[in-house]
Amino acid sequence: MKLSILGCNSATPLENSHTTSQVLEVKNHLFLIDCGEGTQIQLRNQKINFSRIKHIFISHLHGDHFYGLVGLISTFRLLGRTSDLNVYGPKGIKEIITLQLKLANSWTNYNLFFHELESKTSHIIFEDDDILVSTIPLEHRVYTNGFLFREKTGKRPLNFQKIKDFKIKSYDFQNLKQGKDLITEQGKIIKNESLTLEPHPIKTYAFCSDTSYNESIVPLIEFVDLLYHEATFLDSHANLAKKTKHSTARQAAKIAKLSNVKRLILGHFSSRYKDKSQFITEAKSVFDKVELASDGKIIHL
Amino acid sequence: MKLSILGCNSATPLENSHTTSQVLEVKNHLFLIDCGEGTQIQLRNQKINFSRIKHIFISHLHGDHFYGLVGLISTFRLLGRTSDLNVYGPKGIKEIITLQLKLANSWTNYNLFFHELESKTSHIIFEDDDILVSTIPLEHRVYTNGFLFREKTGKRPLNFQKIKDFKIKSYDFQNLKQGKDLITEQGKIIKNESLTLEPHPIKTYAFCSDTSYNESIVPLIEFVDLLYHEATFLDSHANLAKKTKHSTARQAAKIAKLSNVKRLILGHFSSRYKDKSQFITEAKSVFDKVELASDGKIIHL
Repeated sequence: MKLSILGCNSATPLENSHTTSQVLEVKNHLFLIDCGEGTQIQLRNQKINFSRIKHIFISHLHGDHFYGLVGLISTFRLLGRTSDLNVYGPKGIKEIITLQLKLANSWTNYNLFFHELESKTSHIIFEDDDILVSTIPLEHRVYTNGFLFREKTGKRPLNFQKIKDFKIKSYDFQNLKQGKDLITEQGKIIKNESLTLEPHPIKTYAFCSDTSYNESIVPLIEFVDLLYHEATFLDSHANLAKKTKHSTARQAAKIAKLSNVKRLILGHFSSRYKDKSQFITEAKSVFDKVELASDGKIIHL
Repeated sequence: MKLSILGCNSATPLENSHTTSQVLEVKNHLFLIDCGEGTQIQLRNQKINFSRIKHIFISHLHGDHFYGLVGLISTFRLLGRTSDLNVYGPKGIKEIITLQLKLANSWTNYNLFFHELESKTSHIIFEDDDILVSTIPLEHRVYTNGFLFREKTGKRPLNFQKIKDFKIKSYDFQNLKQGKDLITEQGKIIKNESLTLEPHPIKTYAFCSDTSYNESIVPLIEFVDLLYHEATFLDSHANLAKKTKHSTARQAAKIAKLSNVKRLILGHFSSRYKDKSQFITEAKSVFDKVELASDGKIIHL
């Protein structure tokens, strides 16, 4: 898994600080998570081959999380995209995008599928052989979901050390890769497990923005390898966090600790704080494995 | 008049090349003309005090000319704006913006007035003591207007050289500034013209993007001090210009020549051309006083 932060400022973009957007690269997928204004420029800045994006996940319909979507959809058309595009987001997102395309007398020359979300309980919204994506219902001023990305148990890699003792044909390789046992020319059955290695451990990533302090997400994100949790405010503005349904750095750290996550990354900072190091100090008093998001930051898992 | 180019790329923003947006500063106004994605960031980059913007003119509803509008409107709210904001643009613009604000459970804490345009003939859309703004109907794939900004004849400045020969009271100054004659203590009438200077010459600016080659705009923009005309293509792609209802550099220059404008600035370049100097070469063969727009360019008139 490779996570690229395109922007993590709250509310409004500044000169060198974009609003929320991330790209998660996992098992040949390039997932776009939220799409604040200017995301397409950030994708170019970071040399991301964004024609590979086939699935876009939008947490909620506040502008700093989706105002860049319609521009990206238009640019895909201009670049001659033909492959399908799937957008997962709150009910209403289809109306917003299609109204703008309609009034521009515009269209897409690719299939654009909207998967509108309304449920307030966690459910799977995307699944293939390699990965599962499910919602993490959050508590904010409008209907909001975080997203959990979970690799499936990988296939067992071949153990060439062991295989070389046998006479193996090319279709045997295919069978072994698919988990089948080997049948030798003499009709002897060699168990798959004895000719393959343990699969790579699965990785998990949870994206949680925007939300008030909400312990009900803990069972959904327990033990994830990486948790992105919003920290719009510091504890000194806890009242403001409560009022606007956002979190403080301390609250984000508390959620990380309760969830036993391996690593926490904070983002969605309010522009009022010039010195972002205070977020680290405050969070570390609760949970040690914490770092700050920033435009252009890349995290390998 | 001071014109600041925030962006002049066609279709889609690139790393260092934003889509159409301009700020015209004239007589204490800061007019925003078109508002492509990322305009609010460009306003910050160029240190423009954008809370002073009270009138926004949108030429048409293609994304590269207005996708930044909803973000700017939201940011105005976040910055605590209280003064009225007026948006002039094609019918439909109100629905697009209000739908997005509604689905975000959002609002503006200032008055937001939409002036939706439908007329296909030129008409005045804004007027005060100092300035007139009227539409320039253009020919494009969707309903599109250019905009003509015309200073009104200025007041005659006082001629202190002449005034010092008279005993003048403070209300006399006011009367003279307002164009009234002076009546001396002896009851003698001194003509206003003999105590004041010629007013500053008026300035005019015409913004024409996007449009196919269209001579019908010539009477509307004749003799303007500055014409911004789109030049999406070079003549080598004249067929493409015709098909997409855009102009070539040569066509823009021809319009400038027919209109006897003082100065021409070209913009809205297609990204296919790496070497922009070709636009100048092509246009100069028809009209000499031509220059290219670029992000951050400032023109004083």
